[in-house]
Amino acid sequence: MTAVVYYTASTLDGFLADEHDSLDWLLGQDMDHEGPMGYGEFIAGVGALVMGATTYRWVLEHGRRTGEPWGYTQPCFVFTHRDLPAPEGVRLVSGSVAEHWPAIAEAAGEGDVWVVGGGELAGAFWDTGHLDRLMVSTAPVTVGAGRPLLPRRLQLTLTRLERNRAFACAWYDVAGPGDRETWPPAGPRDLDEEHDAVR
Amino acid sequence: MTAVVYYTASTLDGFLADEHDSLDWLLGQDMDHEGPMGYGEFIAGVGALVMGATTYRWVLEHGRRTGEPWGYTQPCFVFTHRDLPAPEGVRLVSGSVAEHWPAIAEAAGEGDVWVVGGGELAGAFWDTGHLDRLMVSTAPVTVGAGRPLLPRRLQLTLTRLERNRAFACAWYDVAGPGDRETWPPAGPRDLDEEHDAVR
Repeated sequence: MTAVVYYTASTLDGFLADEHDSLDWLLGQDMDHEGPMGYGEFIAGVGALVMGATTYRWVLEHGRRTGEPWGYTQPCFVFTHRDLPAPEGVRLVSGSVAEHWPAIAEAAGEGDVWVVGGGELAGAFWDTGHLDRLMVSTAPVTVGAGRPLLPRRLQLTLTRLERNRAFACAWYDVAGPGDRETWPPAGPRDLDEEHDAVR
Repeated sequence: MTAVVYYTASTLDGFLADEHDSLDWLLGQDMDHEGPMGYGEFIAGVGALVMGATTYRWVLEHGRRTGEPWGYTQPCFVFTHRDLPAPEGVRLVSGSVAEHWPAIAEAAGEGDVWVVGGGELAGAFWDTGHLDRLMVSTAPVTVGAGRPLLPRRLQLTLTRLERNRAFACAWYDVAGPGDRETWPPAGPRDLDEEHDAVR
């Protein structure tokens, strides 16, 4: 059965990217990609991806800079109001997670849905009851300010903890709807720009 | 030899307290106090404590509310400009970490210095080259906003990782001076209020 998984790296102080939207703090860290929470094993189970606009633009820009082609064979839904370039397999969508959930679930088939980022999109999946798991590899750095990991109040359950070289890898289940807090108040959000205001 | 250790609990998204300065997210979590990163073993090795003003006021207020007496037998240095009540063993100090470091180190004797919090005080110890280790027990919660864990850019080394029931416990060494980044620019800081602006 499809699970919606927020699989991401984070700084110890809870940021996905620093205040200049840079991932330099991450790219130099030592990780065994065949080890716990390695990308290869994870991506093999993914049926569809979802990204916020900022994350998507970062991926596109990274591709332009490095010359690497679009790296995903699965369908990818990008929440944005802008007219951005879209390689084959990318669907630009605007509106709420709830509205697009049936198409995302159908695209994922038997695979999982990977919430690539950012934090506001992961939060929007949680708001609509569609976030099942977090897989967070925490790098041994603090950056002080940047894009927040998950700007919500969530109670989680730690299901597994393993070291992968420099990283602390933690698997969490999201608590069921009965345990959910009611903050922030429900309501549709504009996901473009992901509302990930840099702190 | 005395080490300066920032021993603290944190949310997964890097906060010491939520935006209402509450620790409710922490107090209900399951931890074995005899287990990894347990308080009893840790405090036995501590020769002196340092706290910022906000943390100190929280501890005082917690004592008033619960009727618990001041819980530390070691000397405790509180960085504040205010005239706050001070139980025996508490020294209210104002000024920089550098200025008070000799007295703190002397008070600690052969024991360690525990930086109790907040994040800005831990950052000030780092700024002056006196932060040696982090011991962070991460609770399985996010709070979205609050008092930041450590508002600095630090490169750390993960030395140990263990689970303690609900918590992911991670031990870090602070990188040596040669690896230190230069952000933020050095300079004395006013530690009263800890500058831990709630985000």
